[in-house]
Amino acid sequence: MQNSSVSEKDIFIEVIEKYKRVRRQSEILCEPLLKEDFNLQAMPQVSPTKWHLAHTSWFFETFLLCEFMAGYKAHHPLYEKLFNSYYVAINTPFPRAERGLLSRPTIHEVYEYRRAVDDSIIKFLSHVTVSKQSVVASRIELGLNHEQQHQELILTDIKYNFSRNPLRPAYCKKSVFKEKKTAERGFEWIEHKAGVTHMGASTTNGFCFDNETPHHRVLIETFCIADRLINNAEYLEFIEAGAYQRSEFWLADGWQKCQEGGWQAPLYWQRIDGRWHEFTLYGLQLLNPCEPVCHVSFYEADAYARWQNSRLPTEAEWERAAKLLPVEGHFICDGVLHPRAACANGSGPRQMFGDVWEWTGSAYAAYPGFITPSGAIGEYNAKFMSNQMVLRGGSCISEREHLRATYRNFFYPEDRWQFSGIRLARSKSHAHHG
Amino acid sequence: MQNSSVSEKDIFIEVIEKYKRVRRQSEILCEPLLKEDFNLQAMPQVSPTKWHLAHTSWFFETFLLCEFMAGYKAHHPLYEKLFNSYYVAINTPFPRAERGLLSRPTIHEVYEYRRAVDDSIIKFLSHVTVSKQSVVASRIELGLNHEQQHQELILTDIKYNFSRNPLRPAYCKKSVFKEKKTAERGFEWIEHKAGVTHMGASTTNGFCFDNETPHHRVLIETFCIADRLINNAEYLEFIEAGAYQRSEFWLADGWQKCQEGGWQAPLYWQRIDGRWHEFTLYGLQLLNPCEPVCHVSFYEADAYARWQNSRLPTEAEWERAAKLLPVEGHFICDGVLHPRAACANGSGPRQMFGDVWEWTGSAYAAYPGFITPSGAIGEYNAKFMSNQMVLRGGSCISEREHLRATYRNFFYPEDRWQFSGIRLARSKSHAHHG
Amino acid sequence: MQNSSVSEKDIFIEVIEKYKRVRRQSEILCEPLLKEDFNLQAMPQVSPTKWHLAHTSWFFETFLLCEFMAGYKAHHPLYEKLFNSYYVAINTPFPRAERGLLSRPTIHEVYEYRRAVDDSIIKFLSHVTVSKQSVVASRIELGLNHEQQHQELILTDIKYNFSRNPLRPAYCKKSVFKEKKTAERGFEWIEHKAGVTHMGASTTNGFCFDNETPHHRVLIETFCIADRLINNAEYLEFIEAGAYQRSEFWLADGWQKCQEGGWQAPLYWQRIDGRWHEFTLYGLQLLNPCEPVCHVSFYEADAYARWQNSRLPTEAEWERAAKLLPVEGHFICDGVLHPRAACANGSGPRQMFGDVWEWTGSAYAAYPGFITPSGAIGEYNAKFMSNQMVLRGGSCISEREHLRATYRNFFYPEDRWQFSGIRLARSKSHAHHG
Amino acid sequence: MQNSSVSEKDIFIEVIEKYKRVRRQSEILCEPLLKEDFNLQAMPQVSPTKWHLAHTSWFFETFLLCEFMAGYKAHHPLYEKLFNSYYVAINTPFPRAERGLLSRPTIHEVYEYRRAVDDSIIKFLSHVTVSKQSVVASRIELGLNHEQQHQELILTDIKYNFSRNPLRPAYCKKSVFKEKKTAERGFEWIEHKAGVTHMGASTTNGFCFDNETPHHRVLIETFCIADRLINNAEYLEFIEAGAYQRSEFWLADGWQKCQEGGWQAPLYWQRIDGRWHEFTLYGLQLLNPCEPVCHVSFYEADAYARWQNSRLPTEAEWERAAKLLPVEGHFICDGVLHPRAACANGSGPRQMFGDVWEWTGSAYAAYPGFITPSGAIGEYNAKFMSNQMVLRGGSCISEREHLRATYRNFFYPEDRWQFSGIRLARSKSHAHHG
Repeated sequence: MQNSSVSEKDIFIEVIEKYKRVRRQSEILCEPLLKEDFNLQAMPQVSPTKWHLAHTSWFFETFLLCEFMAGYKAHHPLYEKLFNSYYVAINTPFPRAERGLLSRPTIHEVYEYRRAVDDSIIKFLSHVTVSKQSVVASRIELGLNHEQQHQELILTDIKYNFSRNPLRPAYCKKSVFKEKKTAERGFEWIEHKAGVTHMGASTTNGFCFDNETPHHRVLIETFCIADRLINNAEYLEFIEAGAYQRSEFWLADGWQKCQEGGWQAPLYWQRIDGRWHEFTLYGLQLLNPCEPVCHVSFYEADAYARWQNSRLPTEAEWERAAKLLPVEGHFICDGVLHPRAACANGSGPRQMFGDVWEWTGSAYAAYPGFITPSGAIGEYNAKFMSNQMVLRGGSCISEREHLRATYRNFFYPEDRWQFSGIRLARSKSHAHHG
Repeated sequence: MQNSSVSEKDIFIEVIEKYKRVRRQSEILCEPLLKEDFNLQAMPQVSPTKWHLAHTSWFFETFLLCEFMAGYKAHHPLYEKLFNSYYVAINTPFPRAERGLLSRPTIHEVYEYRRAVDDSIIKFLSHVTVSKQSVVASRIELGLNHEQQHQELILTDIKYNFSRNPLRPAYCKKSVFKEKKTAERGFEWIEHKAGVTHMGASTTNGFCFDNETPHHRVLIETFCIADRLINNAEYLEFIEAGAYQRSEFWLADGWQKCQEGGWQAPLYWQRIDGRWHEFTLYGLQLLNPCEPVCHVSFYEADAYARWQNSRLPTEAEWERAAKLLPVEGHFICDGVLHPRAACANGSGPRQMFGDVWEWTGSAYAAYPGFITPSGAIGEYNAKFMSNQMVLRGGSCISEREHLRATYRNFFYPEDRWQFSGIRLARSKSHAHHG
Repeated sequence: MQNSSVSEKDIFIEVIEKYKRVRRQSEILCEPLLKEDFNLQAMPQVSPTKWHLAHTSWFFETFLLCEFMAGYKAHHPLYEKLFNSYYVAINTPFPRAERGLLSRPTIHEVYEYRRAVDDSIIKFLSHVTVSKQSVVASRIELGLNHEQQHQELILTDIKYNFSRNPLRPAYCKKSVFKEKKTAERGFEWIEHKAGVTHMGASTTNGFCFDNETPHHRVLIETFCIADRLINNAEYLEFIEAGAYQRSEFWLADGWQKCQEGGWQAPLYWQRIDGRWHEFTLYGLQLLNPCEPVCHVSFYEADAYARWQNSRLPTEAEWERAAKLLPVEGHFICDGVLHPRAACANGSGPRQMFGDVWEWTGSAYAAYPGFITPSGAIGEYNAKFMSNQMVLRGGSCISEREHLRATYRNFFYPEDRWQFSGIRLARSKSHAHHG
Repeated sequence: MQNSSVSEKDIFIEVIEKYKRVRRQSEILCEPLLKEDFNLQAMPQVSPTKWHLAHTSWFFETFLLCEFMAGYKAHHPLYEKLFNSYYVAINTPFPRAERGLLSRPTIHEVYEYRRAVDDSIIKFLSHVTVSKQSVVASRIELGLNHEQQHQELILTDIKYNFSRNPLRPAYCKKSVFKEKKTAERGFEWIEHKAGVTHMGASTTNGFCFDNETPHHRVLIETFCIADRLINNAEYLEFIEAGAYQRSEFWLADGWQKCQEGGWQAPLYWQRIDGRWHEFTLYGLQLLNPCEPVCHVSFYEADAYARWQNSRLPTEAEWERAAKLLPVEGHFICDGVLHPRAACANGSGPRQMFGDVWEWTGSAYAAYPGFITPSGAIGEYNAKFMSNQMVLRGGSCISEREHLRATYRNFFYPEDRWQFSGIRLARSKSHAHHG
């Protein structure tokens, strides 16, 4: 038994290292923030930074410590309710839209909560019985991927929250934000031949979310996909063509949202004295025409594609185009926190990973043969499989290690506060117009 | 030229006959209504009967007479606006939610409008030049199919409107509504083997809507589909299992609608003195346990399937199961206007056409290679390709000739006022649990 | 007993005559309407004409027949609920906003209901026992005054309902609407000296509503009141001064309503090709500058007064100015159904009664010593004594016999669909600016 | 000139002392708060503490420094907009409901803003020219009374904000909150004889708000007023009589709010394990039956009075009863921050000042002869003179020196987050029922 205990420890040494590293990263992201910023919630869809810090700890507490650690006692009797996001099987979550009302627990108390959970997790991981090692390892992996998703949300949410303040606070110092305006030529089409192929993830091959499974066959007809993302200059032509006033390019629901919201440009664009600016994590900046267009809804992406006599790729097409490529691009590790212009003299597919999440034309749904995991953990992804659209590829604020070709992100078609952009596709019969 | 003129006439003789028959059918449906009923609009999604009668005429006037008939002058300068449903390319439609405010034009004036349009159409069809024959024939066909869709809406809408009146008016005399309660055994699974097959309609093979095209290949894995619809007795078990209070069976958006709407049963069910009743076109009736469950949302259909450890079929699966079957079942021509119990001693697939529209698990989207028709007519189907789910098979108030295996109906997942029901499916791996 | 019975009959002969006359008048008002118009309800505050016809009958049935007639059986078991307006002590009323959904009972059935109630009332009135005569007589009087209030609402509501239809239906034939544009000089101030006076009605002096009681003392300081109503020409100057865009003239709540509602002019005004029109019961007409401004909210009346360096009269001031005047002016008996220009060469107070209801600066509240009547009838007026403003004087669609100097009408300060207008007042210190 | 300068200084020495004291008090009130608490805004009607601190400084900056101090330059170009509450004449205020989104300026920056304004004010006050002394002195006085109003709001708002957090944070340490439950006898009526008297403030007699003027005559009939406030025990009887479920006691608008809001008790009451608690500035506490009922709306106060066969006093009656009394009672200087039980063995009027604001039956309106001050300062009170009800007497969190018998507070009849309670009155004819 002693041997076994030792070997358990060995098994989890790397896990513990990764656990510490990922958990630390959430807190690094908060360093530029002032205490005043931690509780902002400017719309129900965004959460206060402090809430993200607490909720990710709640996740480990609920799905690891409470479930597997003998004798574990909850850190605080009310946190189960306050920091539950949407796991109804656990209990009734505190109303999402009211998270910004929680001035208490304080930031200090939330950091104490993180410390306490971390200590327990590390202690727990040092003594996992053999029979539980497999399930615990995969839960930890899930918890860390969950934390990385919330790291991305910390940034998207604080960006949105800051954008509503006329003082235009900057999350980052300006010096980092120095992107050359590289000259850009038009995008080119890359053709993929028709055939039956596989998509989705195999659970035997490293971590993936449940919604990426099962690995399954799919028939794809010949299609073309753009070799890079649509950039601001190209999107500006769409605006200048009056497209925000011309219903013929829009889905009916999109046109209605466009009218109701008074949309005239992507979320953070603002025209000042005749020049386009965009609000960034560096505050308000002049728009760089070569950078990928960002913070557009699915409806805008779809309308842009229609205006271009094209369409958005399906997620099967996107995955087909991406699955042999390395996960390379602009991620959070670059420290730029903003999508960057495509390499001007590149060839072949570029910007498939990183920069901006790419809207696909596919509604988020279960893959054929998908089985919802049992228990509360089954609520992670499965219950959202209606009314949302799939996005692929990750963004400039994603962790590289968090991404893969099979990764499925999903948001409502009207959502604009994510780093979401556009890559075009065409069916074969159209490709010659390109 | 004279010969040609004669032959034109010949060509359109059958078209004119069909035109008269279909147009007459809309008015037959209105015969049981009193003048007071024609203007009801109990929610924005339903339209007053009078509006349906006028709008279908507007469709012929706008897309046939104004477009192709030389020198045609609109019947009334404001009808273009008042009776336009959603064709923004034509002009800004009168607000949908306010259609019930139009006490004028009177019913009599709307019938005069119908007469005037019919006279012009018939006169026009008698002298179509050769070069226009093809496009005119297909427009007429579209207009008649459009009219048949609104015939179905006349009935679903009046049913909803009447349901809100505590007097519970009946559209039909009660005597017709005499359905035996046939004994019913459990449904059985029918298996379909994996393979690449075709789905969608070919434009060369009779009328179809644009959204059914193109005819295209699809890969379907082995699946099982139920041989009949879920009936009221089976759905009642779901209710009695407390499913309307148990979030674990529901999609997140569905659970929210369920809470907001206070859903406890299908739309028209009502428990009186311990016995379940349902509001029908015959007024309030005792619930017949053997009849197909009807007026459920997609969310309820999906939750029921989940509770049954099953799922809804995809539209590809449904079409695969249906495409070799004749279009047989219970349609409006039966005069029953209510879904009927499945034949107790049948075998093989039953109730695939008629009775109730069957929710599929497929979001309504363009088929690969779909091209939106140009002009205002392109708004007919294409701009609704987001946020809605596909339903298949037709209902007890559809015209048989209006239906086919490739027909795609679509509604929002929360919609319940259509005659919509449930057929289950399973992927192969699950089928042995059946 | 026989004698007494005879004398009862005698006592109620005049009552029965008045009953028949008033009830008949409601139906006369409906004669210009088509069957299609009877069920319109374009906003929750207005009721369908058919509902008014039924509700006034329900009032007699509930408060006379059910309460006093031995053995009376309700005409229909559901009418108690359907046609109850707001008497919660009776039962839970059918939701006000859904009255337009009641296509049934039919108009014919509602007229039958009226006939049945009338027959019972007349029969009942012919045999009232001595001990009940007094209470029955006052209830009948209340019911008839109630019916007259609804006669006015029938017209205000149908006017609003018609105004929402782009076809602009006319309730009346145009020929009646021929008002000369009389030249008009500025209004003049009439001064009333300070003193303690009485206001309110004495219950011993003919019919009055409970809210007019008790007759009570009031101290009024010296004030001036305008000798006529503000007319359209004068109000137009206010518009042309940009007052709808200048917050300084507006109460804060009024400014918000003005912004939310996009108010730019009185409710029914519309500028077409540079000329002001107003929607009337005769359809759309050119604005007559000499007629009193009409269909303004309290907020607009108050802002106009402020712009004029004046104020609205209190209800005590208005009553002081009116109480010695005969009830003369333009009422419904004139058949004009529209406010009329003041007599150009008149002197002394004009238009105090009829033409338009005059907004006062007084919130609707109980008079000192007011006692709410017991029972459901106590809900008639008392429970509305918050958030509403008092209007005085009656309008061009009021019955002359229905009005008196003590009469208190009340509406919310944002309401505009009544025939409501403006008369100015000033405190003494201001009067020399006039 | 040198002499004059000296005498100016002398004149303002006391003003400067008071200025420093009042300004300091706002910051003292914030001492128990954590940085996290300063930005809470749980509903549009409450403002973040930080915003109150900034807005009160903005008031001095705008109406003193910018208006009178030569060469004064605004502290920050955007503060004019961000911290303007509702003075539309100054500019368009930042949206009220979004004040909680302003994480910047930081608390530190707001305190710097206060320092800067204070420094400028003191410097300015030391050199006011003779001709400006009078207007400056009265503006300073207004600004300080304005600051005291916001001091009260700081506490009412933080109480509301904390109440929405399930952790139930306490603003004060518990030790202070030790109120004996004094035995209490029933209240008694105090009669005031009918007569003409004066009400309102004279501007020549110390500071008052514009809405208290002019001093004017009023006729009051004989009335009785309760000698103390209604306490929790008495209000509990109302609850236990089922009054929250019985529409007959409620104004129609109040009944609707009651249903919509699910009201069952005063705002902060909560029944836990069969015992009533209330949320206080000390966190959740057991309800003390002898303390005045608090945090009721006008609708609840009015319904309570009706249930008691009484009514609320008019503001004239209240002022008549109060005007000869000294301003004595429980105020913020006591440090209790909660209304206290009436002295058990007192006689004559008690609790007229302090403890809780007392709802009157009077709608907030201009006194006869009232003249709105010119300029932006005229927006202070006058534009709110519709839809609100007057409250009198001050509360346990008011400054004693801020109050007087003529003081008019006003809130919407549905507002419950102020320290608002109930004192009953009766007209003479009723008094014998007491």
